[in-house]
Amino acid sequence: MNNKIEDIVRQDIKKIAPYVPGKPIEELQRAYGLGIEKIVKLASNENPLGPSHRVVEAIKRCADKVSRYPEGSGYYLKNKIAEVFNKPTEEIILGSGSSEIISMGMEVFINPGEEVMYPTPSFQIYEILAYKIGAIPVEIPLKKDFSYDMNMFLERITSKTKVIILCNPNNPTGTIIYKKQMDEFMRQVPDDVVIISDEAYREYVDTDDFGTAEPYLYSKNIIITRTLSKIYGLAGLRIGFGIARKEIIGFMERIRPPFNTTIPAQEAGIAALDDKEYINRSFENNIKGRVYLYSAFDSLGIDYIPTYANFILCRIPNATEVIKELEKRGIIIRDMFGIGPEYVRISIGTEEENLLLVQNLKELL
Amino acid sequence: MNNKIEDIVRQDIKKIAPYVPGKPIEELQRAYGLGIEKIVKLASNENPLGPSHRVVEAIKRCADKVSRYPEGSGYYLKNKIAEVFNKPTEEIILGSGSSEIISMGMEVFINPGEEVMYPTPSFQIYEILAYKIGAIPVEIPLKKDFSYDMNMFLERITSKTKVIILCNPNNPTGTIIYKKQMDEFMRQVPDDVVIISDEAYREYVDTDDFGTAEPYLYSKNIIITRTLSKIYGLAGLRIGFGIARKEIIGFMERIRPPFNTTIPAQEAGIAALDDKEYINRSFENNIKGRVYLYSAFDSLGIDYIPTYANFILCRIPNATEVIKELEKRGIIIRDMFGIGPEYVRISIGTEEENLLLVQNLKELL
Repeated sequence: MNNKIEDIVRQDIKKIAPYVPGKPIEELQRAYGLGIEKIVKLASNENPLGPSHRVVEAIKRCADKVSRYPEGSGYYLKNKIAEVFNKPTEEIILGSGSSEIISMGMEVFINPGEEVMYPTPSFQIYEILAYKIGAIPVEIPLKKDFSYDMNMFLERITSKTKVIILCNPNNPTGTIIYKKQMDEFMRQVPDDVVIISDEAYREYVDTDDFGTAEPYLYSKNIIITRTLSKIYGLAGLRIGFGIARKEIIGFMERIRPPFNTTIPAQEAGIAALDDKEYINRSFENNIKGRVYLYSAFDSLGIDYIPTYANFILCRIPNATEVIKELEKRGIIIRDMFGIGPEYVRISIGTEEENLLLVQNLKELL
Repeated sequence: MNNKIEDIVRQDIKKIAPYVPGKPIEELQRAYGLGIEKIVKLASNENPLGPSHRVVEAIKRCADKVSRYPEGSGYYLKNKIAEVFNKPTEEIILGSGSSEIISMGMEVFINPGEEVMYPTPSFQIYEILAYKIGAIPVEIPLKKDFSYDMNMFLERITSKTKVIILCNPNNPTGTIIYKKQMDEFMRQVPDDVVIISDEAYREYVDTDDFGTAEPYLYSKNIIITRTLSKIYGLAGLRIGFGIARKEIIGFMERIRPPFNTTIPAQEAGIAALDDKEYINRSFENNIKGRVYLYSAFDSLGIDYIPTYANFILCRIPNATEVIKELEKRGIIIRDMFGIGPEYVRISIGTEEENLLLVQNLKELL
């Protein structure tokens, strides 16, 4: 056989750079042989408190049921979400993380050759998904201070624009679209453009000025994506959900993989949504950690972007070296050199983890 | 807003009929208020023995780790698969069930407007995936006895044919492609056509004449998909894998959702692959159950297609009524009326479940 894989692969696939996730704890252990208790992972915006004890119990309870397929649609978890978020069940769809909801939203609406617009720097997945479905990615840069320039989105809309993805709060900058900006944007955006509002981090937002897309669910074509990976502490179970009008959910259901969420994820999801105490504690931990890290960064001369999420984008002098040195000491943070030299993203950890990070930064800077 | 969702949705999406899964146990309970101990589900080709005790332990062990993201690539599970199936790790990719592997394989190679060929009747997902990516589905009917007509595949190949999916053993018929047929097919199929060989049920095959695509992994463009949902007993965790040459896996990795398998699935997968005793017991249970059901069907005058999998396609007189009546008695089987009237697919259960089914069929026929 003349080996012609390169020739028969779709051209768009070749444009995709593989996603680089935050370094897993096990990888660092493999590399440096460190014990698991020693490692502090501040690289993937996970909930540093560990899962809710109710979640742990729910998983254990369903462990002997996993030889059966999950309920495809996630009946009970959807009912719980409907109750907690005050929406009818028909306006909810479950996904393997919210990124699968974003993927399905794009696949339902975007024909090959049509455009999908999203901010940059932002979540790397948007570009991968665009190429995967043969869409034309149109990247809209944030302003110099990493705030959103909503006018630029409006200006760049063409007859080929099918979907606009907004990441709010934006990853990895922690900046948000304010209510006023969102109102103005929604007033002007054409009705035949679908807005996917990725609100994975919104539980951490502590301002009333946050511009969720929710008020526009019934007046525009909107898909809001939410996740249980962040404040709800279920990153390892891959569970997120989308909220949209019934007609939109109906089309997304046609391409939803029949069993896209697992039994433990569905059971743990219900438990996580029920544990208000854990959610509050996670929120408080994040606010406290942010205050502490801001003041530590100030005293260390580290520039940072004020954040509304559970991570902080900052510039650390000599970042490549510092990241490597921190890893040797068992602390993982994430380089964001795609944005510019010295940019790193640090997830807010527990009090103890933040302290450890700061102590080590002090020694290294 | 003039509500124009219908106008902006992709045309192909409208062609997709939603996937209808086997009725979950909970759904029957909701409908008839039956207690869970009473329900016998023979509708989704699951392992009726329940998960391996090693799997249950593995899930419980990792329950408190789920606030972290999984290792995206599934390092340890891939190593285990590499060991068990005697392949280098670079030739393995993990998926959320093997259907995600099929999906990625199609997405990597098929441009919109190109053709994907697959048997009919077969797994409904192939058609859904084809429309999802804008491919043209070309359905190749099995022969009247539901055996494969490989010549028809070859005859229908055009310059637009990009992928051929083979389901072997075929779901829902239980028929296989024999070694000789596969050899002949591989000799003739063009090198620039990619073959996806869906071998989800191959662990149940008890003939040496089975024609796996494995011998052609390095001489043709092949993706073999395997699952841990069936004999390994992990349907509820969504975990499968693909085997292909390194170059092919490399392209698939570019579109693999970064965290497509969960922590419990990865941990349970390792445990399941290690439990040879459970796998053997599951295999034996299936062979025994098949012998028993064949003879019961014979004496009840039920026509069936001899199967190499863990399910039997048969024709039951007055099937609609019988299915309904069985459900009232807590037994779920699956109608296959898409094939023709009276066709049903019955998964082989435990000894006790098979007995219960036969007793009830006797009463109803």
